Amino acid sequence: MNSEKLKIAVLGGTGNIGEGMVLRLALQNLMTEGVKNEIIIGSRSRETADEAAKKALSELENCGFNTSGITITGSTNLEAAQAAEMIILTIRFDNVLPLLDEIREALENKILITPVVPMVKEGNLFIYKPPEEGSAALAIQKRTPASTKIVAAFHNIPAGKLKDVVKCKAVHHALVCSDDVEAKKKVMELTQHMGCLKPLDGGPLQQANTMESLTPLLINLAKLNGLKDLGINFS
Amino acid sequence: MNSEKLKIAVLGGTGNIGEGMVLRLALQNLMTEGVKNEIIIGSRSRETADEAAKKALSELENCGFNTSGITITGSTNLEAAQAAEMIILTIRFDNVLPLLDEIREALENKILITPVVPMVKEGNLFIYKPPEEGSAALAIQKRTPASTKIVAAFHNIPAGKLKDVVKCKAVHHALVCSDDVEAKKKVMELTQHMGCLKPLDGGPLQQANTMESLTPLLINLAKLNGLKDLGINFS
Repeated sequence: MNSEKLKIAVLGGTGNIGEGMVLRLALQNLMTEGVKNEIIIGSRSRETADEAAKKALSELENCGFNTSGITITGSTNLEAAQAAEMIILTIRFDNVLPLLDEIREALENKILITPVVPMVKEGNLFIYKPPEEGSAALAIQKRTPASTKIVAAFHNIPAGKLKDVVKCKAVHHALVCSDDVEAKKKVMELTQHMGCLKPLDGGPLQQANTMESLTPLLINLAKLNGLKDLGINFS
Repeated sequence: MNSEKLKIAVLGGTGNIGEGMVLRLALQNLMTEGVKNEIIIGSRSRETADEAAKKALSELENCGFNTSGITITGSTNLEAAQAAEMIILTIRFDNVLPLLDEIREALENKILITPVVPMVKEGNLFIYKPPEEGSAALAIQKRTPASTKIVAAFHNIPAGKLKDVVKCKAVHHALVCSDDVEAKKKVMELTQHMGCLKPLDGGPLQQANTMESLTPLLINLAKLNGLKDLGINFS
């Protein structure tokens, strides 16, 4: 019955951005044009992942959505990655590379989405601090099998707006970049019906550093100008 | 009679962005709340600068504006910098550092605005290529007197929209960063009434690298997505 649904693993799906991603992806199953999917939340502990899955479903129910066509389950990071065709890394950069080693075999031929931003706090503001490869995306590419299709996306979505599935009407641009044209197209399609995002082609993976560096910029601009949950639009 | 007007030198004011800046600054003299100013276009050749000044005035006249209260003159880069209280560098990065050596004495205690973006073309796309200091802004700071107040601003304004003084209704955010709080405030005030820009505090000068890197991103996004003259908005 679910055989045609796209299986998406949200690793670190118990965190702030992960929670929002899970809700937005789940809602696509209620839309005519959304990408039909089945979501597997991955975490170090299966119990935490299970709880996050239940919480997401009950949040959607509390908002009045019919969740009978929505599947969200919890699992370990490894099992989630094994089961999925598309994997999203909503994990801090410090923890990403060790995790990739753990789940390496499960990444063969998969689409791996990185919204990961390496940044540090200096004083009151955040500074983009890419690894020597030039970006988290390129470091991730180096650490994964050659058959893994790396797509950098979803760096610049304010978690607050992502999670606010009912009230949020703001539509921001989501930049998507990858060296794999087909994988990029799939992620852009997925983005199209998340209810708050318009995808833009960001070019090849080498461009990911600029996208990653926008996240500390957005946080800093919000802090410096008394704003909140800033997203970005190009026009 | 013009004693209270802010004297602004636009060095390299004969180029694409320079032309647009001159027109936008000149128009402030016709607005109730604009910063009243006198514009001196600087160029390597006084004749070229003179011609650019005349062209700007006749463009404004052709658009139907009353230019009797607008002063735009041409001069050499050095004399323009000497005469001005605020200096804008609308010059390619390659040419900026040698010019700063030439006009060094004229920069003491002045506000020096850099919209300069070091970038190179690789294949079809542009790549941000900052100098070893980390950004053009920091390289410029290193090359100027300690009393010069460096402000990074106006990197991300599409020249086409800047120059289109009649039709352009688009309002984009302009990020302004500096270590000198007073100078930053003055440039933000100047930006407020350019007719197409809303200033945002971008923090200290160390943050300029992210702002500079947005320019190749905007050019690339336009090319990759069939768009034109892209500006940026945060919300």
